[in-house]
Amino acid sequence: MSKLKGNLLYGQSGGPTSVINASAYGVITEAIKNTDEIEEVYVMRHGIQGALNEEFFAMTKQDPDHIEFLKHTPGSAFGSVRYKMLDFKQDETDYIRLLYIFRKYNIRYFLYNGGNDSMDTCYKIAEYMKHVDYDIVVVGIPKTIDNDLPFTDHTPGYGSAAKYVANTMQEVAYDMLAYPKGKVTIVEIMGRHAGWLTAAASLASVTGYGPDLIYLPEVPFSIEKFKADVRRVYGANHQCLIAVSEGLINEEGILIGSSSGLKDAFGHFQLGGVSSKLSNILNSEMRISSRTIELGTTQRAAAHMQSQVDVDEAIEVGRRAVRYAVKGEHGVMVTMTRVKGDEYKIKYGKHPLSEIANVERTIPKTMINEDGNGVTQEFIDYALPLIKGHNTPKFKNGLQQFSTLQVNTVE
Amino acid sequence: MSKLKGNLLYGQSGGPTSVINASAYGVITEAIKNTDEIEEVYVMRHGIQGALNEEFFAMTKQDPDHIEFLKHTPGSAFGSVRYKMLDFKQDETDYIRLLYIFRKYNIRYFLYNGGNDSMDTCYKIAEYMKHVDYDIVVVGIPKTIDNDLPFTDHTPGYGSAAKYVANTMQEVAYDMLAYPKGKVTIVEIMGRHAGWLTAAASLASVTGYGPDLIYLPEVPFSIEKFKADVRRVYGANHQCLIAVSEGLINEEGILIGSSSGLKDAFGHFQLGGVSSKLSNILNSEMRISSRTIELGTTQRAAAHMQSQVDVDEAIEVGRRAVRYAVKGEHGVMVTMTRVKGDEYKIKYGKHPLSEIANVERTIPKTMINEDGNGVTQEFIDYALPLIKGHNTPKFKNGLQQFSTLQVNTVE
Repeated sequence: MSKLKGNLLYGQSGGPTSVINASAYGVITEAIKNTDEIEEVYVMRHGIQGALNEEFFAMTKQDPDHIEFLKHTPGSAFGSVRYKMLDFKQDETDYIRLLYIFRKYNIRYFLYNGGNDSMDTCYKIAEYMKHVDYDIVVVGIPKTIDNDLPFTDHTPGYGSAAKYVANTMQEVAYDMLAYPKGKVTIVEIMGRHAGWLTAAASLASVTGYGPDLIYLPEVPFSIEKFKADVRRVYGANHQCLIAVSEGLINEEGILIGSSSGLKDAFGHFQLGGVSSKLSNILNSEMRISSRTIELGTTQRAAAHMQSQVDVDEAIEVGRRAVRYAVKGEHGVMVTMTRVKGDEYKIKYGKHPLSEIANVERTIPKTMINEDGNGVTQEFIDYALPLIKGHNTPKFKNGLQQFSTLQVNTVE
Repeated sequence: MSKLKGNLLYGQSGGPTSVINASAYGVITEAIKNTDEIEEVYVMRHGIQGALNEEFFAMTKQDPDHIEFLKHTPGSAFGSVRYKMLDFKQDETDYIRLLYIFRKYNIRYFLYNGGNDSMDTCYKIAEYMKHVDYDIVVVGIPKTIDNDLPFTDHTPGYGSAAKYVANTMQEVAYDMLAYPKGKVTIVEIMGRHAGWLTAAASLASVTGYGPDLIYLPEVPFSIEKFKADVRRVYGANHQCLIAVSEGLINEEGILIGSSSGLKDAFGHFQLGGVSSKLSNILNSEMRISSRTIELGTTQRAAAHMQSQVDVDEAIEVGRRAVRYAVKGEHGVMVTMTRVKGDEYKIKYGKHPLSEIANVERTIPKTMINEDGNGVTQEFIDYALPLIKGHNTPKFKNGLQQFSTLQVNTVE
């Protein structure tokens, strides 16, 4: 591929993380250095949908303060999207439109920031552009609090979400000690198929204040076993702190949360809520007072709990994506490999999108305890370095300062 | 009352706040300065229960680092209790025991840190000791995230909880903007009879990212009105962020949360959960996808979100309590009065416990909007100064350092 000169198009896709905008910061600040190859940096509004609708943020036209704030801003500052591209052999419509837009805006670098589904989109676009022989470099940038992308030690976004979960568990565990006889507290944590984030609850225990039991989607969930576990811990300590994944499934592969059996006055099954289902069992069947904490989207949005390691890596994968792009590395995702040794260190690299798209990485058995209700030291050693350092929020009057950017497509 | 020389006994009672231990820090550090009056500082384990059981922390015997950490430690570092003292004319047993303990340990200063119920305990002890003519000074120290104590502008603990709620709402609101068409998110906030903490959700809106609707226990809740409000906001914005108090009641005074009508397979009514009740209505009756966030005890435990103003004031009420005590101000609680003027300033004072015990202060009508689904500028002006400043957590390896103290009663 010959050296290209043109514009770079970047987009965010899938569920936000508290550091996806730090990756955007890395992309933007690196791209404007490469003036030989890159003229303007456009960012799609709501990911690929913004490309199809011709809605862009032109980055050279933004307030520099708000580009700085990206490092502290949760959510998707440019908007995200959940949009499944069909195979171009099935339906070429979107691809033809994209090609038109790429030509119109002279897009020669396409960077897409997301998780499994987004890497699938990225891969399909890369393949199509090769198919029609349009000169462009497509690079994927990993992100997900679920930490389930393959071929990378971990994903940006996970460390900060893990830090938020671990600190919250630490605070709740300490709070529970207030009373000599307490309750059962069940904290419901995100991650539908992979338990990485739920497992991060265990990191709190390093301080002496953490959960007693952890249930991961990797281990088939048995309600009888759960009841026995709670009976044992509650019997010994008069209180019990439990972390459960929202995605717990039983031996038959049925979600515990959605099989709650609770109906409203109209006969509709209540949606979700594995924690309330389990709490209900403890209250009604075991007469143990319990309560739930459902953190919901705060887990991916808690910018005030960013890990510095995570922010630095999120910025760096953005930068590396630009460097790979200008080198012409088409159809890859940026990866992180842990360097063996006493000190935590990451080596950045790349891996073909073709092997990443739609593959989910779950927790290996060696990181889960024998009883299936906790983690091993191997997990602690793996995850603890990822939550280190604190990216102190930019507070003003006790509230955070987030980026506010302008959609300003330029012809 | 003649000048007393003896020991000081301090205790924590009721639900913890993230700064009640900062008040303990204020008490301890001030008490040891007053060597003319105070010999040793004892802290009861689990409040009044520790006094009855003779379980004390002797503060001069603790690791000074862990006394410093009190400023960053949530929960009740010394243990709390919910114990209702009977009127001594009804049953003198506990009082006789307390008097014995006070004499045995030469307790001449009794400081009790808590909310409404705790001030009742404090008042009863003060009255009894006067009745039996035992020379002691009893002083109450306010705390509660509910902010419902009378005769004080606000209570320590409220500012930090308000800051946590406001920042969380800000993050969730920003996160929701990721998608062009979103969901309804209902965040359930603590405060059974007073909506001060739920109202604090509004502070997020100062930044441009906050809740659309706020429902307080002070306003009788109508499900029809709620549905109309959501229909209007969702129709206009394709998403809606709602803050609800766990203590919402309808016109008949019945809790919305506990009247959910949801039953499990065994016919038991599901406990609590006003947010899931409302979410269920939106999902089933209005076909609007909604989800809930239940912050639970994180609201009182989020030490990582302490407001500096709140920490400073919590320490100061502890100090003032000691100063009132050594001056012989028997049967009062420390209060805070806001000094009129452009800049936020507090004047500390005292008020008789007799008028404080069991009185709850709710939000005045002038702070609630006409529609009953939000607050007025008067509330913002009142609450915003209380969340200012950030008491940066003492992180180590990405986790917080909390106090660990030793129960070490000395004869």
